Amino acid sequence: MNNKVDLNCDMGESFGAYKLAMDEEAIKYITSANIACGYHAGDPQVMAQTVDMALTHGIGLGAHPGYPDLMGFGRRKMDVAPGEMKNYFIYQIGALQAFASSKGVKLQHVKPHGALYNTAAVDKELARALAQVIYNLDKDLIFMVLANSEMEWAAEEIGLKYAREIFADRHYNSDGTLVSRSNPQSVIKNSDEAAKRLVKVIKTGQIEALDGTSFPVKADSICVHGDTPGAIQHMINLRQSLEEAGIDVISMGKFIR
Amino acid sequence: MNNKVDLNCDMGESFGAYKLAMDEEAIKYITSANIACGYHAGDPQVMAQTVDMALTHGIGLGAHPGYPDLMGFGRRKMDVAPGEMKNYFIYQIGALQAFASSKGVKLQHVKPHGALYNTAAVDKELARALAQVIYNLDKDLIFMVLANSEMEWAAEEIGLKYAREIFADRHYNSDGTLVSRSNPQSVIKNSDEAAKRLVKVIKTGQIEALDGTSFPVKADSICVHGDTPGAIQHMINLRQSLEEAGIDVISMGKFIR
Amino acid sequence: MNNKVDLNCDMGESFGAYKLAMDEEAIKYITSANIACGYHAGDPQVMAQTVDMALTHGIGLGAHPGYPDLMGFGRRKMDVAPGEMKNYFIYQIGALQAFASSKGVKLQHVKPHGALYNTAAVDKELARALAQVIYNLDKDLIFMVLANSEMEWAAEEIGLKYAREIFADRHYNSDGTLVSRSNPQSVIKNSDEAAKRLVKVIKTGQIEALDGTSFPVKADSICVHGDTPGAIQHMINLRQSLEEAGIDVISMGKFIR
Amino acid sequence: MNNKVDLNCDMGESFGAYKLAMDEEAIKYITSANIACGYHAGDPQVMAQTVDMALTHGIGLGAHPGYPDLMGFGRRKMDVAPGEMKNYFIYQIGALQAFASSKGVKLQHVKPHGALYNTAAVDKELARALAQVIYNLDKDLIFMVLANSEMEWAAEEIGLKYAREIFADRHYNSDGTLVSRSNPQSVIKNSDEAAKRLVKVIKTGQIEALDGTSFPVKADSICVHGDTPGAIQHMINLRQSLEEAGIDVISMGKFIR
Repeated sequence: MNNKVDLNCDMGESFGAYKLAMDEEAIKYITSANIACGYHAGDPQVMAQTVDMALTHGIGLGAHPGYPDLMGFGRRKMDVAPGEMKNYFIYQIGALQAFASSKGVKLQHVKPHGALYNTAAVDKELARALAQVIYNLDKDLIFMVLANSEMEWAAEEIGLKYAREIFADRHYNSDGTLVSRSNPQSVIKNSDEAAKRLVKVIKTGQIEALDGTSFPVKADSICVHGDTPGAIQHMINLRQSLEEAGIDVISMGKFIR
Repeated sequence: MNNKVDLNCDMGESFGAYKLAMDEEAIKYITSANIACGYHAGDPQVMAQTVDMALTHGIGLGAHPGYPDLMGFGRRKMDVAPGEMKNYFIYQIGALQAFASSKGVKLQHVKPHGALYNTAAVDKELARALAQVIYNLDKDLIFMVLANSEMEWAAEEIGLKYAREIFADRHYNSDGTLVSRSNPQSVIKNSDEAAKRLVKVIKTGQIEALDGTSFPVKADSICVHGDTPGAIQHMINLRQSLEEAGIDVISMGKFIR
Repeated sequence: MNNKVDLNCDMGESFGAYKLAMDEEAIKYITSANIACGYHAGDPQVMAQTVDMALTHGIGLGAHPGYPDLMGFGRRKMDVAPGEMKNYFIYQIGALQAFASSKGVKLQHVKPHGALYNTAAVDKELARALAQVIYNLDKDLIFMVLANSEMEWAAEEIGLKYAREIFADRHYNSDGTLVSRSNPQSVIKNSDEAAKRLVKVIKTGQIEALDGTSFPVKADSICVHGDTPGAIQHMINLRQSLEEAGIDVISMGKFIR
Repeated sequence: MNNKVDLNCDMGESFGAYKLAMDEEAIKYITSANIACGYHAGDPQVMAQTVDMALTHGIGLGAHPGYPDLMGFGRRKMDVAPGEMKNYFIYQIGALQAFASSKGVKLQHVKPHGALYNTAAVDKELARALAQVIYNLDKDLIFMVLANSEMEWAAEEIGLKYAREIFADRHYNSDGTLVSRSNPQSVIKNSDEAAKRLVKVIKTGQIEALDGTSFPVKADSICVHGDTPGAIQHMINLRQSLEEAGIDVISMGKFIR
């Protein structure tokens, strides 16, 4: 269906003396970076370096705000009221915007992190709060959303630009949700299988669920990971497969209107 | 010498369940608010509320970044390298800029907090680093500096706007430095005496030091405090004395070029 | 039923420059202090001062551990796995134990804070995890539990000492749970009414629920608050009413076996 | 001079999702672990796991408290008053003591971390404050000190047990201080050279300084690192060299009286 797709990856999740992932390698193969903003991961040094690195590689800059839980890496749900989460969002996005603006550039997108992403995908009030905050900050920002989730509907309603995301290495249920990681079949470990599957999703606009049924999805961006063994090779394979199939792999900012 | 002066006060230093100072009262009598940015004090909720409150009262918005030391309230010197402090500055100022920009306004000034202010006043490399960062973020931002300090020289050198600050309730040494708080005469406790003294400083451009000698100072802003007993009454007295002496009490953004 | 009761109050919830509640006053009227341990509130300075103050007044020392959420004051539920919460508990209780042991005394009890308390009251796995950790640290420690909750059953099962707590100013439902704060009748604001009611509960071993029915409760400790207007006067009234009714107001450590 | 020496290594400096160093390997070759306590590094999960691992290998458990500066990994000096640092020490040591006591064991030693260690080595008031706190907490605890530093004199004065530490890979000045890392010759990179040198130091009680002169040192423990490339091989070489020279490599707790 589409002949364009973005590849996004979480970046800048190191902190102080702690180094996480292989950002210097991963950044060569992706088109958009989701940069941690100091709440679940990242610190000002890391943010400055990651913005510089992304600019060097000409990829899209995105804020990746999360819950204020460094010890839990933002992976634990917290009962933060939507009105309060709005302010946490402004704080984190604003901090990253300043690193971009001090280099004369603007952010391309915002993607919530971890447990916040999962919660906003199913919680209408939270999804709207986040979409509204992004819209107020900068109408040109793209909200990166789980395809077919409350986040997508919130962006649509508010008139905020959005990019629908699918996951490179995950199986889906027939209702469009991700198969839980507790199911041993949830993760697609074979790199070639994952790449072929994604080419088909982009080309056909259909995902085959684990039960064999299909459902429609319009995918603007594919989420890849840079912190697992073999991650870089997976990215290279995926990018090559997409390009061989005639799909342009470019930053979402170049095709999301 | 001047017939205009700004009154600035630290604001938004509450955190979570912890309330500090009487911002709601103090904000009625000042013309510029230095708003904490979450490192030494303040949190996103407090920042949002303080920005709203300052806009309601039509006063200038300033960022008040500090060391990352909430437990010490930013009052303890930390050996942070200037290059790293630059990034802490960008982070904190950017976070506050976003609260302003989501309301459609811009920040007026930046004033470093506590031990960072004291260190930058005497450390040339740090002063330059901070001035440079502010200049890169927004050339219209005013750097609030201790009069006659390394911060003033740094702003001058870089071509950054600056406002020279004096303290409402403190005695000075003949070399322009503040009398140490360890000296029992360091703080002027009598509200009328302090007000008269400040009127004279603004009118004459001279400060009388504790030893009776005088030295020149161009004061653009007077720092007042909102967290001590009697603070609000001091502000009222001071503002009235200044106005009765024909001095305009207005936001620094209206006269600093 | 009982002729003895303990009065407990949260203490040591100040942090750095932030002062909370009137601990110096409240401590005169209570018999057990629940001392914050640096996660949801409190810091090492405050812990040291609060332990000293409690020893001066001869009251029981308790640890008051919470979620690692200073910004939310531990009032927001976090999805922390019970196994991980065990280690947060050891950390916080151990830190306070050291302040006690450096003064040659031991802790009397442990009371979870805020959202952690509410969660442990209804989550069997979490309640058991917390009870087990306390038992492993020191078999003499008393677990302060919501009467008739999962915490009580967990302590009973493990063989850990426990004190059943009721709230001085709250109405109950007929099933023993607290009436939600969203119900305007949830809080008993009249000090005399609250005091009379508590005397009756201690004397009869029955609580009258908001719907008029009664249910049995064995209350070992009454939770009072020191951070609201009129709080100190409420404590004085309550203590006087209890004593006039012939009830001994003493530290739980003196009667819990 | 001695025929016994302890090998100590910093451990448990991971945090949340961040893994640091190769503790699982390093722990096989050392005799004492300095375990981070959550201020400069470490978290309750990591502390629990590190205590378990150290017990499995039968080595001495030590607390490794630092400044409250996770972002700077405790490597930046902070102007914390000695009286306040005492309470930070009690807090951190107490937290680790609880992990030990919940396993039925006691801590062997305390070693300050990073900038705190460097400051206490030259600041008499701070050194005494730390030594006094350790003594108050548990008279059997060993204070691990830089040989010939203010920490050693403070322990001596107070009557606290102490272990004098030297560094496996560092050159010394003739006055007993370490050659600054800014000097390219400061670090001994050749593993065999470092091992031979340390055997000689232990055997003769003399260190040869970089300028060729010698000075006396009684070394009870050698500090090794587990976080650099080749670190594990260095440890193996060192331990083998020491044992071949007839030096017992055992936990300091077995020979410090």
